[in-house]
This record gives sequence, structure tokens and C-alpha cells, in this order.
Amino acid sequence: MSDHQEISKWMEGFGPEADIVVSSRIRLARNLEKYPFPHRISAEQAKRVVEIIQNALKHSSDPVLEKLMWVSLEEMSDLDRQVLVERHIISPQFINSGLKNKVILMLKDEKISIMINEEDHLRIQCLFSGLQLENAWELCSHVDDALGKELDIAFTEKYGFLTVCPTNVGTGMRASVMLHLPALSMTGQTGKILSSLSQYGITVRGLYGEGTESQGNMYQVSNQLTLGKSEADIIQSLKGIAQKVVERERAVRTLLYSKNRMKLIDRIWRAYGVLTQARIISSGEAVKLLSDVRLGVDLGVIPKISNGIFNQLLVYIQPAYLQRINNTELDEEERDIKRAELIRNKLSNVYDHTMTAIGNETKDKINKETKEG
Amino acid sequence: MSDHQEISKWMEGFGPEADIVVSSRIRLARNLEKYPFPHRISAEQAKRVVEIIQNALKHSSDPVLEKLMWVSLEEMSDLDRQVLVERHIISPQFINSGLKNKVILMLKDEKISIMINEEDHLRIQCLFSGLQLENAWELCSHVDDALGKELDIAFTEKYGFLTVCPTNVGTGMRASVMLHLPALSMTGQTGKILSSLSQYGITVRGLYGEGTESQGNMYQVSNQLTLGKSEADIIQSLKGIAQKVVERERAVRTLLYSKNRMKLIDRIWRAYGVLTQARIISSGEAVKLLSDVRLGVDLGVIPKISNGIFNQLLVYIQPAYLQRINNTELDEEERDIKRAELIRNKLSNVYDHTMTAIGNETKDKINKETKEG
Repeated sequence: MSDHQEISKWMEGFGPEADIVVSSRIRLARNLEKYPFPHRISAEQAKRVVEIIQNALKHSSDPVLEKLMWVSLEEMSDLDRQVLVERHIISPQFINSGLKNKVILMLKDEKISIMINEEDHLRIQCLFSGLQLENAWELCSHVDDALGKELDIAFTEKYGFLTVCPTNVGTGMRASVMLHLPALSMTGQTGKILSSLSQYGITVRGLYGEGTESQGNMYQVSNQLTLGKSEADIIQSLKGIAQKVVERERAVRTLLYSKNRMKLIDRIWRAYGVLTQARIISSGEAVKLLSDVRLGVDLGVIPKISNGIFNQLLVYIQPAYLQRINNTELDEEERDIKRAELIRNKLSNVYDHTMTAIGNETKDKINKETKEG
Repeated sequence: MSDHQEISKWMEGFGPEADIVVSSRIRLARNLEKYPFPHRISAEQAKRVVEIIQNALKHSSDPVLEKLMWVSLEEMSDLDRQVLVERHIISPQFINSGLKNKVILMLKDEKISIMINEEDHLRIQCLFSGLQLENAWELCSHVDDALGKELDIAFTEKYGFLTVCPTNVGTGMRASVMLHLPALSMTGQTGKILSSLSQYGITVRGLYGEGTESQGNMYQVSNQLTLGKSEADIIQSLKGIAQKVVERERAVRTLLYSKNRMKLIDRIWRAYGVLTQARIISSGEAVKLLSDVRLGVDLGVIPKISNGIFNQLLVYIQPAYLQRINNTELDEEERDIKRAELIRNKLSNVYDHTMTAIGNETKDKINKETKEG
């Protein structure tokens, strides 16, 4: 498992539209022929599934598969498991299911992670920064092909890949993008826009996928249908929709900024003031304020803070992660203190000693804008 | 009239207990014999009162009286009058009364101001920083004596000085101290403690005297009775009570700081964060947050900001003052913007470039304290 202090590839914040599109994810559901699906499997059979995949990896000479690390979920502490969820490497369901012999295969940079014995025998995930669905698909497809050479994957001409849940049958693919939509949220448009996407076979979820709520104006937008459409079609359609939502978000930002300039600037700087000075902060308040500051950077109100810092903070301020980096169990109050400390350190390092100078420049800019606006 | 950018003597924040006792004030009510009280006076007679006092000053060779500047209230703009109220040089009642020929005599440093034709013919005020009632009394008494040599002041052996309101008869003196009591406020004790003072003949008012509410945990504590007690007794009694309230405030601060250390530190730094970053702020929010930050400095949570800065800000963020220094009329929204700007500038100048270093020291200290606490 990778070092907890390290930055996952997806957190780096590069790639197209990376200011608004936090990450792009492709996930493939695959099952072995001749073995029951995980929820019907015996512990013995589940163990056999793991062994078969282990053998397949040994036989394969694929350069990507060779780099995969093997991690048994059962041998990890509760905290380490939760950290993997917070880093978006595994699903919360993977931890909570009563299934046995759960294993993770992953690359050190966390671009690829494979859950074994989650809902399906294999869940292959590729996670990229920004709007990079095609790149994520290319990598995921490569891993799928390489594994397919060594494994008997359940597939029929009629239905495509067979999966536990009928919503995954066909391509077995779920493509998704994580979007930061503060302006649409502020103007109360997210509900309307995002629910209207269902007619295009698109669903919207929160920061940690199915069953989670939006936090910090982050929305996970993904395809609902997997049957009757090619992977390329699904990806192109989702990409097009993501671009439309991004455009809409940008348009509303511009409108907000021209109509309520000072109020918006005030909100952004107050959020920055609280984040850089608070000594106790809940994760709920933190993600909300980080969303405001991120918007401030995108609008040029606040000097540059990289997308990477925001992406990392979204993960690092989560409960398990905070306990992991502090190497100790923390109750809620202690976490709120450590969270505030971590945010202060991260944000104060960004500007370092240059803040005074930057502050004056920004001040001048705002004064100028106020007069013009 | 003094330059608006200048710091009044009382704002400097020096003197005993100046962290909690913002200022000490002595006010003497005096009336001329043979002239009706101002509310019964004709415009002609009021003019005559002014001339008599003017002549008295011309005749006097007293070194203090010689330095007094003469300002006619009627010749000032509404804004300039309001600024004098905000600087605590004159009472709000002086502006609002329908009386004619209102004049102010004052020293450039604003330590002395005399209102002519307020409720009484003469209201002599001496305003000092910190707990300096005796010094304020000494100066006031000097001015009173010097004026008394030139004027026929209404006085009887039985009642002492005669005044419009019976509560001023006798010494004609009101002694008061302005106290900053955040810890007593936070713990809901101000109401109980301050109202219990009435048995000692003490009344409690807000930041701008009679009929105003407490703002930013500032309370004006003054003597109610003027009859049957000497000035020295009144001053000693008020001083003793002020010291008791100060002790109590300090005790509650210590208690709060030991019992709710992190919550208090968080509140203080958040206040600092908002004050140094907000772009729009009402005076109500500003005085509340300034009170938190001032408490933070007193507790050593926040690096030193002088009492003077806080005292000045209490005045400078008021509506008239903001318009005066910006040389233009401002509506409420514009004032909120200019207020935020002024506070940012004042507070950022305090730490200047040394903030990063100071910040780390404080951080270390707080970390240490958190572990111990």
C-alpha cells in the first residue's frame, strides 16, 4: 500500500478543465466463469477466486500488471481500510460487505486499483485528474485485456459481460467525473440541472459515490446504462455532458461575479480568513469553506493555490486520514483540532513569505474593480 | 477642531488597567447665575451665555484655558458633528437638542472638551486613557476653578451646584469608566454584576452613554448620585468598584481560558481571520469581533496589538468617521466596504512582515498548551 503522505495521481489537479473537473474515473465490473457471484460464494470459493487471479498475475508478462501491489483487506486495520475509501481507491461497500477474502490490487500512484470480491469478482478502477475519461478508459481497457488473456471472464454474445447487478451488465463499465459546482449551487441550480441529466442516462451522486451526499459542492456524475452502448459511446456522451455542465458553471460564475462582485469577494476572503485561522473545524465546514476559496482562486480573487492542494485537502481532512497521519486514534473534538492545524499548514505554505506583497496587489486589484464595478 | 486622522489622548491606551479600562471620564455640570437653564432660554440669552464665557476666556491667563479652541456647532456639517460624538468629545444629546448657540471648547488632544448650552450652560469633560479618574478629576477641577474665577456660577451652600436635572445637583459631577468585559459577557454575568452595582449608586450604560446599548462588550460605569458626597469620595468609590469588576473579569478570563481553552482560542483566531480578510462588514459585527481579538491579545493568544489600535478602531469604524476620512457621503453598503478596508489596513500594519515568524511561535505555544491542557 502506498505511503499515506503521498499524493495520488488523481489529486495532482492537472488535465483538461481541472479547475472544475476534479477527477475522471472508469470502473469495469468483471466476473470469473464457473464461480458463483461473491454474494453467493463460500469462503473457500472466494479464496479460490483470489488464488486464480494471483496465478494469472504470476503468469502474465504485462508491464502494467507486473507493477500491481497485492493488499489483503482483512489484514488491514479498520483505520487503514477507511483511509483507502477516503483516497477513493476502494468503495465504502467493499469494507462493509460481509464477504470474505477481499483483496486489493493497486499501482503505487493509485491510478489503477482492483477490488477482488467486492460486489463482483473483479472491479477494475482507473482514476485520473481532470477531464481525462479517454485516458482512464485506455488504461482500464489495457488492464482488462491483459487480465482477460489469463482469466476466463463471464461473457455472452447477447448480454456482454455478466455482473451481479443488472445495471452493470453489458459493458460492465461505469464512467464518472467529479465536478466542483459552487456557482450552480449558490444559485440553487444544481438540483434542476443535475436531475435533468437522468433523461440522458446520467446519475448524480456525492463525494464518496452511491448513497453519499454532496459535500463542498462536489458532484459525481456518471452513466446509468451499461447495456446496448459501446464503451466509446458512453464515454463520449458523458464527456459531452460534463463539458456542458462545466460551461454552464463558468457562465454562472461570470454572472455572479459581475452582479454580486463585492459580496462574492467578501465571502471568498472570509472563507480564506477562517480556514487560515480557525483552531477547531468540522469536516463539513471545512469542505464548504474550501469550496469558496477554490472558487476564489478560479475567479482570480485569491492568489493562485493549485488544484492539487484542494484535491489533497478534500482527502486529508477526512476522519481516518487525520488519525493515520497523526498515528493515533482521535475523538471528534481532537480531529476537529488536527483538521484545523492541517488546513492552516497547507494553506500558509502556499503563500509563505510572499503573502504581504501578494495581499497588497490583490487589494489594489479589488479596489480598482470596486470602482469599476 | 483637531485633525480627524489624529489620535485623541484617551485612545492611546496607556494608564493603569488599560487592557480592560478603556477610558476614564469626569464631567462637571455648571450653570451661570442670572440666566435661565438652556431649555428655558431664548436664543438671545443663549447667545449672551456664549459671549460671557468667551469674555471670561479672554480675561483669564490660565495656561490651560488659553489653549482651548472654540468651535461653533451650528457652523459644522452634520457629518463633522457626528464625528465629534463618535470620538466621545460631545454627547449625542448635544447635537439633537433644539437649543441654539451651541458651542464647543476643546483641547487639540481632546483631553478636555466643554459643551456650552447642552443640558446645562457648561458641561466640562476630561477624558483619559485607562483607569485615571484622579488625573481626570484634577484636570477638570483645574478648569472648573479657572472658569469659576471669571464666571458667576450658580451655587448654594445647601444644594451645591445647581443643575437642570436633579440627579446632577450637588457636585454636578459624573465620573465614569469604560470597561471591556468580554469574559463576563460570554458567561452571561454582566447583567447580574452590573445591575447589582445600583445599590452602590452606580449605573451602567453603553458605548455612547445614556440610552445606548452595550456594543462589543463595552460598558460605561458611572456614579448615579451627585448630592451629599464629595467629589473625592465619588471618585474613590467608583475607582474601587471598577477595580473589583476588573478583578472579576480577569478571574473569569482565567477560568474560561483553562476550562475552554481550545474553543476560546478558536473563537479568537476566527475573529482575527474574518477581520483581516472580510471585504464587507457591519459595525455591529466588527465591534463584536474586535472584542474577541482584544481578549485574545490580553490572554496572549494573539501577538501584541496595542490597546490604542483597538480604541482607535472603535471610533474609526463608526459611520460618520468613515465618511469623514473618505471625504464623501457613503451609503450603508459602501460604509461596510470601507470599514472592512480600514480594519484590514490597521490590523495588517500591526504585524507587517513579521507575521510568519510570530505565527509559528504562537502555533508552537498553542500546541504545547493543548497537550498540557
